[in-house]
Amino acid sequence: MQLEAIYHRPKNNFAYAYNEKTLHIQLRVKKNDVEKVRLLYGDPYHWNKDGWIFSYKDMTFSGNDGLFDYWFVEVSPEFRRMRYGFELTNDDESIIYTEKGFFTEAPCDDVAYYFCFPFLHQADIFRAPEWVKDTVWYQIFPERFANGNPSINPKNTLPWGSTEPLRDNFFGGDFEGIIQHIDHLVDLGVTGIYFTPIFKAFSNHKYDTIDYMEIDPQFGDKKTFKRLVDICHQHGIRVMLDAVFNHSGFYFGPFQDVLENQEKSKYKDWFHLREFPVKTTPVPNYDTFAFTEQMPKLNTENEEVKKYLLDVAKYWIEEFDIDGWRLDVANEVDHAFWREFRKTVKSIKPDAYILGEIWHDSMPWLQGDQFDAVMNYPFTQGALDFFAKGKISAEEFKNVITNVLHSYPKNVNEVAFNLLGSHDTPRILTLADGNKDRIKLLLLFQLSFIGTPCIYYGDEIGMTGGQDPGCRKCMIWDQEKQDQELFTFVKHLIQLRKQYPVFCNDGEFRFLEADRNKNYLVYQKQSKDETLLFMLNNSDKEVEIPFVNGIRTALDLWNNCQ
Amino acid sequence: MQLEAIYHRPKNNFAYAYNEKTLHIQLRVKKNDVEKVRLLYGDPYHWNKDGWIFSYKDMTFSGNDGLFDYWFVEVSPEFRRMRYGFELTNDDESIIYTEKGFFTEAPCDDVAYYFCFPFLHQADIFRAPEWVKDTVWYQIFPERFANGNPSINPKNTLPWGSTEPLRDNFFGGDFEGIIQHIDHLVDLGVTGIYFTPIFKAFSNHKYDTIDYMEIDPQFGDKKTFKRLVDICHQHGIRVMLDAVFNHSGFYFGPFQDVLENQEKSKYKDWFHLREFPVKTTPVPNYDTFAFTEQMPKLNTENEEVKKYLLDVAKYWIEEFDIDGWRLDVANEVDHAFWREFRKTVKSIKPDAYILGEIWHDSMPWLQGDQFDAVMNYPFTQGALDFFAKGKISAEEFKNVITNVLHSYPKNVNEVAFNLLGSHDTPRILTLADGNKDRIKLLLLFQLSFIGTPCIYYGDEIGMTGGQDPGCRKCMIWDQEKQDQELFTFVKHLIQLRKQYPVFCNDGEFRFLEADRNKNYLVYQKQSKDETLLFMLNNSDKEVEIPFVNGIRTALDLWNNCQ
Repeated sequence: MQLEAIYHRPKNNFAYAYNEKTLHIQLRVKKNDVEKVRLLYGDPYHWNKDGWIFSYKDMTFSGNDGLFDYWFVEVSPEFRRMRYGFELTNDDESIIYTEKGFFTEAPCDDVAYYFCFPFLHQADIFRAPEWVKDTVWYQIFPERFANGNPSINPKNTLPWGSTEPLRDNFFGGDFEGIIQHIDHLVDLGVTGIYFTPIFKAFSNHKYDTIDYMEIDPQFGDKKTFKRLVDICHQHGIRVMLDAVFNHSGFYFGPFQDVLENQEKSKYKDWFHLREFPVKTTPVPNYDTFAFTEQMPKLNTENEEVKKYLLDVAKYWIEEFDIDGWRLDVANEVDHAFWREFRKTVKSIKPDAYILGEIWHDSMPWLQGDQFDAVMNYPFTQGALDFFAKGKISAEEFKNVITNVLHSYPKNVNEVAFNLLGSHDTPRILTLADGNKDRIKLLLLFQLSFIGTPCIYYGDEIGMTGGQDPGCRKCMIWDQEKQDQELFTFVKHLIQLRKQYPVFCNDGEFRFLEADRNKNYLVYQKQSKDETLLFMLNNSDKEVEIPFVNGIRTALDLWNNCQ
Repeated sequence: MQLEAIYHRPKNNFAYAYNEKTLHIQLRVKKNDVEKVRLLYGDPYHWNKDGWIFSYKDMTFSGNDGLFDYWFVEVSPEFRRMRYGFELTNDDESIIYTEKGFFTEAPCDDVAYYFCFPFLHQADIFRAPEWVKDTVWYQIFPERFANGNPSINPKNTLPWGSTEPLRDNFFGGDFEGIIQHIDHLVDLGVTGIYFTPIFKAFSNHKYDTIDYMEIDPQFGDKKTFKRLVDICHQHGIRVMLDAVFNHSGFYFGPFQDVLENQEKSKYKDWFHLREFPVKTTPVPNYDTFAFTEQMPKLNTENEEVKKYLLDVAKYWIEEFDIDGWRLDVANEVDHAFWREFRKTVKSIKPDAYILGEIWHDSMPWLQGDQFDAVMNYPFTQGALDFFAKGKISAEEFKNVITNVLHSYPKNVNEVAFNLLGSHDTPRILTLADGNKDRIKLLLLFQLSFIGTPCIYYGDEIGMTGGQDPGCRKCMIWDQEKQDQELFTFVKHLIQLRKQYPVFCNDGEFRFLEADRNKNYLVYQKQSKDETLLFMLNNSDKEVEIPFVNGIRTALDLWNNCQ
C-alpha cells in the first residue's frame, strides 16, 4: 500500500459536523490501491479492563480524481465525541492508519494514537440558510438589464443596445427596468437575484464605490429600490447585493479627505498608506486593489472602518430587507473582519446569505465562522473546459469535478455558488464558438449538479460577448432576437430542479462513466427512493450509451415518457 | 517522483504569516524522492504581455519524519499577497506542483492554477505574547507544594508527606507555603508558574469547581492570593491559572439549582440536559466530562454561561493581575466560545497567555483566533518513550519530534508548552525506573528544545510517583532528601537557556544524527552567529561520537572550557 498517499486531517473536508448529530469522515488514498476501508471509532472515555472499546463501520468509495480515491462514512456518536482511525485492506495487507502513523494492529492501550473529533457543538457547525440550497440564482448587471426610466439616464446615455459595450459607455439600465421585466425572471423560474453593485459610483460597473449608503442615481432612488425588493419577494425571489469592502472608489469621501488633508486627515488610518504625501502617480504609494490607483484598499483592521462597513452591512438589510451579501475580492480582506461581519449580519437576519468571491481553494473561509458559500470557479473552469471549449476529455472533467466535490464538506457543496459566467468572463455561447448544443449540455450539467446554479443575465436567451466589457451587452428584449428555444430549455431544467428534490440537492452525485477516449459522460443523482441517470454526449457524433447497473425500465423525465 | 506523496494546502503549518512581512511556506514530499525544490511565486496582479510574471526561490530541506521529507522557505512579498507553486526536481524529472495539480512547465496564462496567499493581514497573524517564548514554566499542584498556614487546613489534614497521596486525602498545601518557598523557584530560575485550579471545590485537585469567583479557603483568601501574585511578579515570575470551563463541579450553584428545581430551574440551559427529571444514577442523563456524573458539562453555547465564564476570565486578570489562563479539556469546548474568550482576555490584557489542554493535533485552535499554545503532549510522548522508557530508537524519536515540529507554524512551535509530566501522568524518574542519567538527558533535551519547557514540581529534586494520585506526593522540603545534584543540573540548564538565546528559541533546531541502531543522538541549534551542538548518549555504554560538519574547535558550554 502506498502509505505516503494516505491522508486525513480533521476539521475541514476530511472530518466535519454535517448537522447536530452527524459527523462526516473522509479518507484519501492512492487510486486503485485499497479495496476496503473501515472506520474504527469509539467514545474516547469508553473503556473496559481490556482497554479502549471501539467499533468498526464500513466506508464507501466516493470517487477518484485521477490521482486519489476517496472513501466516505457518516457516523453519529452517541455522546457527540469520537476518537477514530482507519483500517485499510487490499490483497497484500491490512493496516491501521491513525494520527500517530501506521500500525499492523489497532492499539487499544491509549486513545492518544487516534484522530479526534472532540465534541460536536451546534455553534461550530457550518450552516448556510435553509433556503439557499433550493435557490436558482440570476445575476444582473444593472446598467445593462433594462432601461425603465429614461428620466434618470446618466449623461451621454446611448440608445439601448445601439452599440457595443465599452469600459465607459452608458445605456441607462435601472431598477424600473428590472421591475418592468420581473415576469421574464418569474417565467424562467429563478428564485434569487445577485445584483452587481448598485451604490453611488462613477463607472458603469459601480465597483468604485463613492458612497456605500447611497444608491447610484442612474439606477433610481431608495424608494424604487425598496419597491424592487418587495416585488422580488412577492414573486419568491431573494435579493443579494454586492459589497465591495476590500477597497473603496477613488472618490470615496474618506479617501478624498486623505488626498486633501494628507497626514492631518482623520481618515489616514482608513487605508494602507505607505508614506506622505499620498500620491497616485507614477505608481500609487498606498495599497490598492491589484495595481489600480483608482481603488485604494480599505484598512479593515481599523476599528472605525470596521464600524462603518458593518453599519453598511446592517443598513441595507434593516432598511430594505435584502437577503444576502456577495463579497467582492473577499479573500483579500482579513478573516477577523469577516468573522465580525458574519456575527453582525446574522444577528439582524439569521437567514441572510453570505457569499464570498474567492477563486481558489476556500476551505479556510468555509468553517462556519465566515461565509456560507464561495463562487465556485473551479467548477466553472472544469465545466467550461469540457463542454464549452472541448479542451479536456470526459475523464479529465470527471477528475476536476470529483476533486472539487471532495475539497469541501457536503453541507458546503450543497450551497456552492455554481456560475458559468459573469460580468468578468466571456459569455458561454461565445466560449463555445456559438455551438448551442454544447451550451445546452453545459446548462444541463450546471442545473443538475450539487450546489446552487447562477445564470448570468442573457445567457438563457443565447446572448454572446467576449471578455469584459464584451460580456456586458444590453439585455435583448426583442423577442425575435431572443433564442426562445434555449429559454424554454433552461426553463424546463429549472422546473425539473424544483419538481424533483433528487435533481436538486437531495441526490448523491456520482460519475458512472467518464472515459478518456469517448466524449460522453454518464452520472447519477441518487436519493433514498429515486435514481436519476444523466447521459450527455459531448461529441458531434451519435453514440450508443448502454444503461448501466442493469436498469431495465426508466422514466424519461425530459420527455416525460417511459 | 511519487506524486501522491506531495502535499501542500495553505493557511496552516504549510503556509502562514510568520510576522507582518514574512510568509513561511512548507512542502511535504516522499522521503528521499526529491533533490531540489524551488518556490515559484509572484504577485497575482503582476503581468506583462507574455503573461504572469514570477520568480523562483530555493527551498531548504528541513527534516524527515520517516515517511516524508519537508522543505521550507521564507518569503516577503512586496505587496503582501502571493500566488505560488513548487518546482520539484530529481534525477528523473522536474515537475511543477500547483493547486490544480501537476504540470511539466509552469503555466503563465492564468494565476488560477496556483496556490494563493491572498493578503498578509496583521489581524490574522498568530501572535503569542512576546514574553512567553523566553519563559521557563513550573507547575504547582497547590495542595501538595507547601503548607504555610496550618490554621486554614481542611478537615482531616494529614501531616506533610506522612503518607502516600490518595484520591481523597489532604495535606494542607496553600498559598502561604508557596510564598515561603518562592526562593526555591527563584533559585531554580523558573519564570512562570502554572497553578492547577485554586477555586472553591471539594476535591484535593479542585477540578470540580463549586464557585469560579472564590478561592478555596484551604489555599488562603483573596488577599493572600494577591500577595502571592505580587511576590511572583517581583521575582520576574508570571502566574497562570487553570480555567475549567468545559464542565463545572457537581456542587456548582447552578447545577444544584437544576437538581432542585429541575425544569423550573433558571439554569436549565446552562448544561446539556437530555431529559427531566435530571438524575445522576445509574448513568447521568446529562452530558458530563467523560462519564463522570460529578462533572456536568457546561453549555458554553448559552449566552448566560458565556457571559458568566467570560466575567470569570476577566475578574482574575483585572483584580489579581494574573498573566495567563490554562484551559482544561479545551478541545471539548466550542471554537466559537474560545474566539470570544480570546477577544475578551486580550482586550483587558493584550499580553495575557492562553494555553489550551489538547492532547492531539491542535492546528484548528492555533490559527491566531483562539489559543497561544497547547500542551505539547506529542512531544512529551516521544521524549518519554526515548529517554525515560527506552521504548523507541533514536531514529524513531527523531521521526516523532520532526513530525511534531512540522505539524505547526514556527511561531506556534516557539511557544509550545513542552511538559514532561503533570498531575495526570507518572513522574519521569518513575517512568525511567529510577535511572537518573536518563532523566538528565530527558531534561537536557526538554530545556534545549524549541518551545517553552514546564517542570512539574518536585521533578527537579528527583521526586517519584506513579499514575495519579501517586504523582501528587507532597513536595519534599527536607534538603537531605532532595536530590541536590539533579537540582543543580536543572538550574544549570535553565541558566544556559537564559544566557544563550540560541539555546532557547532563537536557534533553528535540527537533528544531525539519529541512527536506528546506535542509541545516541546529535542535534544542533543554530542562529546567524552561533551553533550549539548537542550529543546525547542514551545508552549504558560509552560511545565515541565524532564531531560532524568538520568542526575543529568548540566551546564546551557545560563545563565552560575549550
